[in-house]
Amino acid sequence: MVKDRIAALRREMQRRGIDMYIIPTSDFHESEYVGDYFKARKYMTGFTGSAGTAVVTLKEAGLWTDGRYFIQAQQQLENGPVTLFKMGEEGVPTVKEYVEQNLMEGQSLGFDGRVVNGKAGMEYEEIVKKKNGTMQVSEDLVDLIWENRPPLPQEPVRILPLEYTGESTLQKLSRLREKMKKNKATVHILTSLYDIAWLLNIRGGDIENVPVVLSFLLVTEDGCCWYVNQNVVDEELACYLKVNQIQVKDYNDIYEDAAALSEQETVLLSRSIVNFRICSSLDQKIRLIDKPNPTELMKAVKNPIELANTRKAHVKDGVAFTKFMYWVKQRVGKEPLNEISAADYLEKLRREQEHFLDLSFGTICAYGANAAMMHYSATEESNASLEPKGFLLVDSGGHYLEGTTDITRTIALGALTMEEKRHFTAVCRANLNLAAARFLHGCRGVNLDILARGPLWDVGLDYKCGTGHGVGHILNVHEGPNGFRWKIVPERSDSCILEEGMVTTDEPGVYLEGKYGIRTENELICRKGEKNEYGQFMYFENITCAPIDLDAILPEEMTETERRRLNDYHKMVYDALSPHLSQEEKEWLKEYTRAI
Amino acid sequence: MVKDRIAALRREMQRRGIDMYIIPTSDFHESEYVGDYFKARKYMTGFTGSAGTAVVTLKEAGLWTDGRYFIQAQQQLENGPVTLFKMGEEGVPTVKEYVEQNLMEGQSLGFDGRVVNGKAGMEYEEIVKKKNGTMQVSEDLVDLIWENRPPLPQEPVRILPLEYTGESTLQKLSRLREKMKKNKATVHILTSLYDIAWLLNIRGGDIENVPVVLSFLLVTEDGCCWYVNQNVVDEELACYLKVNQIQVKDYNDIYEDAAALSEQETVLLSRSIVNFRICSSLDQKIRLIDKPNPTELMKAVKNPIELANTRKAHVKDGVAFTKFMYWVKQRVGKEPLNEISAADYLEKLRREQEHFLDLSFGTICAYGANAAMMHYSATEESNASLEPKGFLLVDSGGHYLEGTTDITRTIALGALTMEEKRHFTAVCRANLNLAAARFLHGCRGVNLDILARGPLWDVGLDYKCGTGHGVGHILNVHEGPNGFRWKIVPERSDSCILEEGMVTTDEPGVYLEGKYGIRTENELICRKGEKNEYGQFMYFENITCAPIDLDAILPEEMTETERRRLNDYHKMVYDALSPHLSQEEKEWLKEYTRAI
Repeated sequence: MVKDRIAALRREMQRRGIDMYIIPTSDFHESEYVGDYFKARKYMTGFTGSAGTAVVTLKEAGLWTDGRYFIQAQQQLENGPVTLFKMGEEGVPTVKEYVEQNLMEGQSLGFDGRVVNGKAGMEYEEIVKKKNGTMQVSEDLVDLIWENRPPLPQEPVRILPLEYTGESTLQKLSRLREKMKKNKATVHILTSLYDIAWLLNIRGGDIENVPVVLSFLLVTEDGCCWYVNQNVVDEELACYLKVNQIQVKDYNDIYEDAAALSEQETVLLSRSIVNFRICSSLDQKIRLIDKPNPTELMKAVKNPIELANTRKAHVKDGVAFTKFMYWVKQRVGKEPLNEISAADYLEKLRREQEHFLDLSFGTICAYGANAAMMHYSATEESNASLEPKGFLLVDSGGHYLEGTTDITRTIALGALTMEEKRHFTAVCRANLNLAAARFLHGCRGVNLDILARGPLWDVGLDYKCGTGHGVGHILNVHEGPNGFRWKIVPERSDSCILEEGMVTTDEPGVYLEGKYGIRTENELICRKGEKNEYGQFMYFENITCAPIDLDAILPEEMTETERRRLNDYHKMVYDALSPHLSQEEKEWLKEYTRAI
Repeated sequence: MVKDRIAALRREMQRRGIDMYIIPTSDFHESEYVGDYFKARKYMTGFTGSAGTAVVTLKEAGLWTDGRYFIQAQQQLENGPVTLFKMGEEGVPTVKEYVEQNLMEGQSLGFDGRVVNGKAGMEYEEIVKKKNGTMQVSEDLVDLIWENRPPLPQEPVRILPLEYTGESTLQKLSRLREKMKKNKATVHILTSLYDIAWLLNIRGGDIENVPVVLSFLLVTEDGCCWYVNQNVVDEELACYLKVNQIQVKDYNDIYEDAAALSEQETVLLSRSIVNFRICSSLDQKIRLIDKPNPTELMKAVKNPIELANTRKAHVKDGVAFTKFMYWVKQRVGKEPLNEISAADYLEKLRREQEHFLDLSFGTICAYGANAAMMHYSATEESNASLEPKGFLLVDSGGHYLEGTTDITRTIALGALTMEEKRHFTAVCRANLNLAAARFLHGCRGVNLDILARGPLWDVGLDYKCGTGHGVGHILNVHEGPNGFRWKIVPERSDSCILEEGMVTTDEPGVYLEGKYGIRTENELICRKGEKNEYGQFMYFENITCAPIDLDAILPEEMTETERRRLNDYHKMVYDALSPHLSQEEKEWLKEYTRAI
């Protein structure tokens, strides 16, 4: 099947004189997750992982993916026409190096200019120039051969009232225009689905677990045009848009309108997000300001109403999670439970909460050795039965009208080894140590990361990922520009100065391959503390409400300060959740939030 | 006097058609400290501070300096023709902004191209271009009017034997040439006096407290030419240079030789260090690689012989300092002591140590409120009498044949307030907390700084400087590229990855204006620890040997871990120093390094 598809693609390439065709994993908006319509790379190669790029020449076909997927990709590509390129391994060229090495003098490189961002597109352009070649980027060749391709989504759109957003679209647009003015930009092209949804105070459902609306936005000094499938604009929304002075055009009109912009304009856009076709539609004489979208920082700084709502969402989510924790600890060993049935039960408890909208991401419910894989997702094959011993790691969250949650707890299902307890205690200390930080305004995640990582580094352990990420407000659960990470990775754009109102996760862990995984994740609101001659001090407010399993804690491995931190946290959890629990659950929670 | 000098300078400017003349505080090598010959800015303005830039036009004369010197500069410039520009204050233009605003269309800007680095020179060049003006940078106008200018120094040169350097010049040159090759450079121009001294394994005395030799170096793939005052090359040195295949030319020949380099060459140099005249001497067609000098990192990574020697130097220095600490604590209140006499006595003790060469910087000996000024230097006017109460802060160090030291201790001279003790204890905890870091290779100072700063931030305090700097080996006591700092300042180039063998100071403090200053400074060697699946772990070895005054410690404000750290440190100090002390000193040290 893959063989036939590759062959069909090559026929289309040959018809157009294209020698090499690139198929990344991307929608037209550089979204982190993509909808089914956009899974062209999966269709062409058979590899189902969430990240990867295919490159097809008339003779070769390659798939690039990262360490998380080497084993899976190897299996799925076996005996097929596609060669696996293991990213990051020694001697393996990157996609760009491969293109540079294999595109011959005068040849033609093709890709759909909508699924490659402007920055990457320019890099390909440079390679092609060096080879005196040509680029063909206006057609989606996969579309021509993809039978029964899923349609572009057009899920209903919801308008978020002011009591949930805390700021009207007009106000947000006015702030955005100030930033445009400061940058001397007359036009701003915004294609990030998260930023558009935040700016327009609307939510949709066009990406699984990410309630956004597939659309583009073009903002001028006095106008604003939303490019969207007009089927989703009902009477109420049309009226809302009118009130907010937002014009509506068809989703695909953005390209023409971008091309029609006068060379007098100064356009602010983020080249690493806006797709290459839009970037190259612009008149070449236009002054282009390539900067992060101002809305990125604006939406990361939650306003007091968003924060007050988020706290409410966390209580609801904590109630659901604590009920789950009680349930699983009571039932395990007495009735058959497995990763999938446990995750389903947790989802049911979340759905029972008022104003629940959706899960904020696919639940990671991983038992025993499965939890050592950080991005584990249970399948029918891997689905482990829960036994009354060892750890169950559950990383999950929900979207509520009030906000979004992301919580991880590692639950002792029964007997634990001393090593398991020691590692659990170290992770708990790491988590609470970061949450207790007091720091001067100006600090970034890179300054604070060691507070979480230190307790693990002290005993020769580490986790191979950042310590935390920004959390979208009824948007993508992962967002920038805030985060905790010890090595700055510029492309990630998650190392900004921590500002009051930002919400960041705090999720250190221990992952021992073939043995177990431990992670404790809370969300922290950054808040202002004392201001004095040294500057503005900041601190964190812990808003996640669920017990950290005392069955796995070794109090003697904690300092008095650390025990006090845990006790204070548990007191807050009990006070917040107990009014919403049954008598038995309440008693259980009392026990599991006791001072140690 | 200053008035006459400015007038004389203006006559020279007018003669040449120069409208604006810049006089920075710099030698021809961008050294941190400069010799008397290079104090042209002081001569022209009367301002004696260590940092400042003068700009003279035909009508105005301005002096730019930073916050440390506002009061002093105000006093020294009073009633004179020079206006003070307070750097960093709102509404005050920078030097560059001033030049940009005040150089008129078609005018001529002048400065001595040897005292402005290549990067700054290019920036001036750009401004001048915009104004369609001209640059005159080949003359030192101050030299024409400076009567009795001190001569260029030509202090004797010492060759360091292999037992002190651990690596021969030939080996170092060979490693340097590898780096040149990696950068595809055929020529390397090195003007940093520290790097030249390190590379040639020679030391001099051309800057106070910095044992370097005024010289330039030009390294090619198979040659090496040292540009130096030939008077300092005696027979032994000439022979040594010959053996190491190093040609000698006159100090000033570098400009001609740079100009004579073929356009085929690729020249590696650091534009922010190499002076503008050298940079602009180069054929414009030459490919220039503007990168930090490879020797910067090479010399920062001390080899095992340098480290073994450094440890010996620290024992000697610790003996001198501990004798001093004993002496001052015994004598204060019983006989007249002041900041200067105490510093002199400390210097005398250092000079008694074998292989002592020089102080590594001017001793800061600051009593009471004087210590709140971080860079205080006692003068006859400020010289405070020591009384049996409060704190004496002493920041000092020495060069020994074995290495260089930099130590700060704050000594309780008598009764202390609770606040003084609390702050002293917090600084001690901060110092030991950073020294105890365990971290993965790849960390920079920016990752670790909060370990020292955290205990102060926790109580709403801070110090307005970095936590520590690299230490040169019988060179400048301050060196890059390592350091501890929470905000990266790219120009400072002190935020590199911490490598095995680097030596960095750890010097948190508390400074309360008008009250007191506390600083505890140790030096740390970065060392390799365990290597496992997570990477290479690193840790620090504390090499400074002197008690941290227990009279000022509140044990109840330290955790058990922190007390253990202090006790372990003090045990090391006692074991290292006691064999070299008198009976009374030994008994005293026993008491002052007791476990708490």
